[in-house]
Amino acid sequence: MASEFALMRTVEFAETDMAGIMHFSNYFRWMEACESAFVRSLGLPLINFNPGEVVGWPRVQATCDFRAPLRYGDEVEVRLFVKEIRTRAVVYVFQFRKIVAGRPEAALAAQGEIAAVCVTGDGRGGMVAQPISAAVREKMQIAPPAAYGAA
Amino acid sequence: MASEFALMRTVEFAETDMAGIMHFSNYFRWMEACESAFVRSLGLPLINFNPGEVVGWPRVQATCDFRAPLRYGDEVEVRLFVKEIRTRAVVYVFQFRKIVAGRPEAALAAQGEIAAVCVTGDGRGGMVAQPISAAVREKMQIAPPAAYGAA
Amino acid sequence: MASEFALMRTVEFAETDMAGIMHFSNYFRWMEACESAFVRSLGLPLINFNPGEVVGWPRVQATCDFRAPLRYGDEVEVRLFVKEIRTRAVVYVFQFRKIVAGRPEAALAAQGEIAAVCVTGDGRGGMVAQPISAAVREKMQIAPPAAYGAA
Amino acid sequence: MASEFALMRTVEFAETDMAGIMHFSNYFRWMEACESAFVRSLGLPLINFNPGEVVGWPRVQATCDFRAPLRYGDEVEVRLFVKEIRTRAVVYVFQFRKIVAGRPEAALAAQGEIAAVCVTGDGRGGMVAQPISAAVREKMQIAPPAAYGAA
Repeated sequence: MASEFALMRTVEFAETDMAGIMHFSNYFRWMEACESAFVRSLGLPLINFNPGEVVGWPRVQATCDFRAPLRYGDEVEVRLFVKEIRTRAVVYVFQFRKIVAGRPEAALAAQGEIAAVCVTGDGRGGMVAQPISAAVREKMQIAPPAAYGAA
Repeated sequence: MASEFALMRTVEFAETDMAGIMHFSNYFRWMEACESAFVRSLGLPLINFNPGEVVGWPRVQATCDFRAPLRYGDEVEVRLFVKEIRTRAVVYVFQFRKIVAGRPEAALAAQGEIAAVCVTGDGRGGMVAQPISAAVREKMQIAPPAAYGAA
Repeated sequence: MASEFALMRTVEFAETDMAGIMHFSNYFRWMEACESAFVRSLGLPLINFNPGEVVGWPRVQATCDFRAPLRYGDEVEVRLFVKEIRTRAVVYVFQFRKIVAGRPEAALAAQGEIAAVCVTGDGRGGMVAQPISAAVREKMQIAPPAAYGAA
Repeated sequence: MASEFALMRTVEFAETDMAGIMHFSNYFRWMEACESAFVRSLGLPLINFNPGEVVGWPRVQATCDFRAPLRYGDEVEVRLFVKEIRTRAVVYVFQFRKIVAGRPEAALAAQGEIAAVCVTGDGRGGMVAQPISAAVREKMQIAPPAAYGAA
């Protein structure tokens, strides 16, 4: 049963923009990379096209608050918390902290959320929401709100 | 005085992912492209590095609700509405509608928001929020909430 | 019968990097966008997953020479030339020219090539090269090398 | 003195396209990420805006041959070889190999090259090529062509 996960990333040159900071769209890609590694760490597929077990997790909502910029070469911890497990959807909270040597309490650079709905194929090339499987429910657990600083 | 703007885009192959739909991070890039074209249409700079008038609009919050997927080749109208003009920030609402011939009332595929704060250089390589200039206030106007479907 | 095509693009903020210029990886995305619009202009699919007519054009080689940087807001013409039509592949040349008012002879900012091979599904989830169809050969024509400045 | 470097990467969901494989533009981003980590491993800056020592390495040419597709979740070794050190430019070769457990000799998925020219500021907001510094020459060495399979 896991409710948290962490991924380390370094800001790449291609992720910066002409303002000299990481472009805001990349935070969303990093959140997904962290979710993807989390789901993989549980032995679950993020996406599966095998007939009869088609599954995906398209996003229904994504949001991010940006507090301090990240720059080329910054080493960043992206931490995932399972916020909600609904019938057909999971909501994750993500926190971005720049790692600075000698400063154990890294400040929060950004915080975001993704709500992903569990879908399967509808047999006509489209997708339809489905209840989250027992396999997922056995492995994921809701994090206490205090873990990500919620009152 | 402008409170709305529209940009047409076609979903590109590189914007799709293995689920066959536009990757969700690209909606945020499209919102920014629409904001950028809006600001340019007003004769204002989105970013300006000239000494003494350094200005930028970093994002402090971005959010998007995804209702229906967009696919390769889809023609999409991205419509911007000025939601709020604060002392140091502007909040925009964006609506994504897939254009389908013969269906004048295109359904809403996604709706998002970006809050951008007006900054100038702090003289030490960083950025500091500053009040929005009179030049901006003379050209931008708040859209009526009904324009983007808010109650 | 077409051997050339042109697409206008404006450099977006998200396409720049911290050096203040368009990131080099985006030239490859623009080449593909131009190829895609060219193929669509001929009424041909760039990618098609319909059973029995599965077709795609994966790249086997891509190259680009960068001569002058492109910056945020630059308006650029991307021009495509059909260089070769082989049994199973097409080779395109692309030229990037920044449009400057009053300077009809825009200088070459970059020149690239893409070799794309025509594939179909192999029935096991993979792809296999196939001869280019008569439908494609009827619509595409090789451009004279002088058109793109080759000796 | 270093002439080779290796970086491990996992193909992310956002790096795939609707054909189910890694989009070809991302190979160029991976090459740059590998170059960046290599340069950092030597204690050299990839980009530096400090007055009096402004330096950057814009690309003058980039090319890639694609031999086998990479898919979501694939673990890939990107290996860099220093091919040439010219007066003002360095040329790197990059090889992409998918790591498969139990198959020590990973097949080549792609091979590319980047030529990067050393520049400094020209004092007017532009860039001008400059000779590669002694600091760089002391740390980089040309790899024997046999290392990357050249005849």
